[in-house]
Amino acid sequence: MLEPRETRPDLASLRAHVCARMDAMFERLLAIPDAPNARLYAAIRHATIGGGKRLRPLLVLLSGRLLGVPEAAALRAGLAVEAIHAHSLIHDDLPCMDDDDLRRGRPTVHKAFDEATAVLAGDSLLALAFEILADPETHPDAAIRSALVVSLSRAAGPAGMAGGQMIDICAPALALDLAGVTQLQRLKTGALLAWSIEAGAILGRAPEAKRRRLASYAACLGLIFQIADDLLDCEGEEAKAGKRIGKDEAAGKRTFVSLLGAEGARRKAEALCDEAIGHLAPFGADGALLGEVAEFALTRDH
Amino acid sequence: MLEPRETRPDLASLRAHVCARMDAMFERLLAIPDAPNARLYAAIRHATIGGGKRLRPLLVLLSGRLLGVPEAAALRAGLAVEAIHAHSLIHDDLPCMDDDDLRRGRPTVHKAFDEATAVLAGDSLLALAFEILADPETHPDAAIRSALVVSLSRAAGPAGMAGGQMIDICAPALALDLAGVTQLQRLKTGALLAWSIEAGAILGRAPEAKRRRLASYAACLGLIFQIADDLLDCEGEEAKAGKRIGKDEAAGKRTFVSLLGAEGARRKAEALCDEAIGHLAPFGADGALLGEVAEFALTRDH
Repeated sequence: MLEPRETRPDLASLRAHVCARMDAMFERLLAIPDAPNARLYAAIRHATIGGGKRLRPLLVLLSGRLLGVPEAAALRAGLAVEAIHAHSLIHDDLPCMDDDDLRRGRPTVHKAFDEATAVLAGDSLLALAFEILADPETHPDAAIRSALVVSLSRAAGPAGMAGGQMIDICAPALALDLAGVTQLQRLKTGALLAWSIEAGAILGRAPEAKRRRLASYAACLGLIFQIADDLLDCEGEEAKAGKRIGKDEAAGKRTFVSLLGAEGARRKAEALCDEAIGHLAPFGADGALLGEVAEFALTRDH
Repeated sequence: MLEPRETRPDLASLRAHVCARMDAMFERLLAIPDAPNARLYAAIRHATIGGGKRLRPLLVLLSGRLLGVPEAAALRAGLAVEAIHAHSLIHDDLPCMDDDDLRRGRPTVHKAFDEATAVLAGDSLLALAFEILADPETHPDAAIRSALVVSLSRAAGPAGMAGGQMIDICAPALALDLAGVTQLQRLKTGALLAWSIEAGAILGRAPEAKRRRLASYAACLGLIFQIADDLLDCEGEEAKAGKRIGKDEAAGKRTFVSLLGAEGARRKAEALCDEAIGHLAPFGADGALLGEVAEFALTRDH
């Protein structure tokens, strides 16, 4: 049951709650063993505890709330997708990929440890995500757990996020048009965001019509976040971002900003925000918090 | 139902059958899309199709045959563990890990493609493994599929294979004793071999007593394979191995051979082979093929 409207928490307090729960759950999952593989756990902890916006788990929670999903189940699914997100950041930061030294204002894993440890830490988080989902603690119905595993592995794999990273690497040579940049984003960052929303629908056994509306909302949200990222990459402040900026332009990659101009990109994001909120109509007042996420995505400065 | 004894196929023909099925199943799974992520699929295919001993899927099939598991289910689980095995080889071969140019007599993925593509190809195979297991095509009972996912993610993750790789990287500094080298092997290569045997038991809903016997067999088998690998690494021929040999000695790593001497290591492997075959006793004549695998592990020259 959802709480009556007057007790509905605001987005900021829910986000703070999700951040605290993610840290606590990663702490429990990643107790450092008294064994020679302790270094690997230390590296995984470096990448997962005490940082990050925890946007994906927040989305699972908000989507789940629309469908009466118990918070504990939503947070387990959120932990899984956050593990995959952290996996992708570790590998993205490697010297052979984006070659970044800084992430969330701290040294990246391969700088704080070494490259081999970073490869293994990323691999470990990818494996852990599926253990989390398939564990009976996530949901008593194994069919639901299996559906979560299938959908998340597709979202993370070569037809999803990894495929998007591949296109991103080839992007300077591809001279992508708007459709190409949109497809790149849909896979590279959109797939995990869309899964986060979908996870709430799977856990809540959403009827097909609601599932489709949530998927349409998620597609808009992914684009808004990417456009905002592109704008921050060319206009933002490195200190607030906690990472190097201006990378895309330096790499000669086409972005929404390079294709539409900053003003055109901002207008597109605003239109997508209206569209996203429209897709939430069937959920009435309960959809308001997801609407706020779309607005936050549009206006964030880091 | 198992076939009557007179029609039981021999190990060589079963192995050839498994090799052919794995190639066909990877072909089907990895159809190259007409999209800019095609390069990623090409790299994954390079690492999975047309090579490899396919030992792990063979073990799933043989273990499953003891418990009446349909061949199609065993091959799906075998495909999943072979995907993870290929994942681990791609990442192990990276310059920041073992830095190998040759694998199965062909250029490694980062040589045939590039390092970033190799990282993503390895990641993709790890994700695909769980999609394969959790898909209803693998088994109609979602509880069985979830149990396969949980156990394989543990076998692949930081408390399993990835943890073993971490110890292996630290090994030159650790000056491991026999217990340490055994633990390293149990995680790095033993975890996936043990899972392959366990998968047959999970799919066949094996009673606890049989499950324990199979796990004991698998623990012996893992050690035999590692000792044989260590012997080949110091005595084998590069041409037959299809990869660089003499690496462990050059890296200053302790192995079963450096700790026990070649003759002592060989005697230990022989004793383990007898023990492995002993653990198969409850399965009567049906266990003969797994016994043959242990003998093959002991005597192989590549």
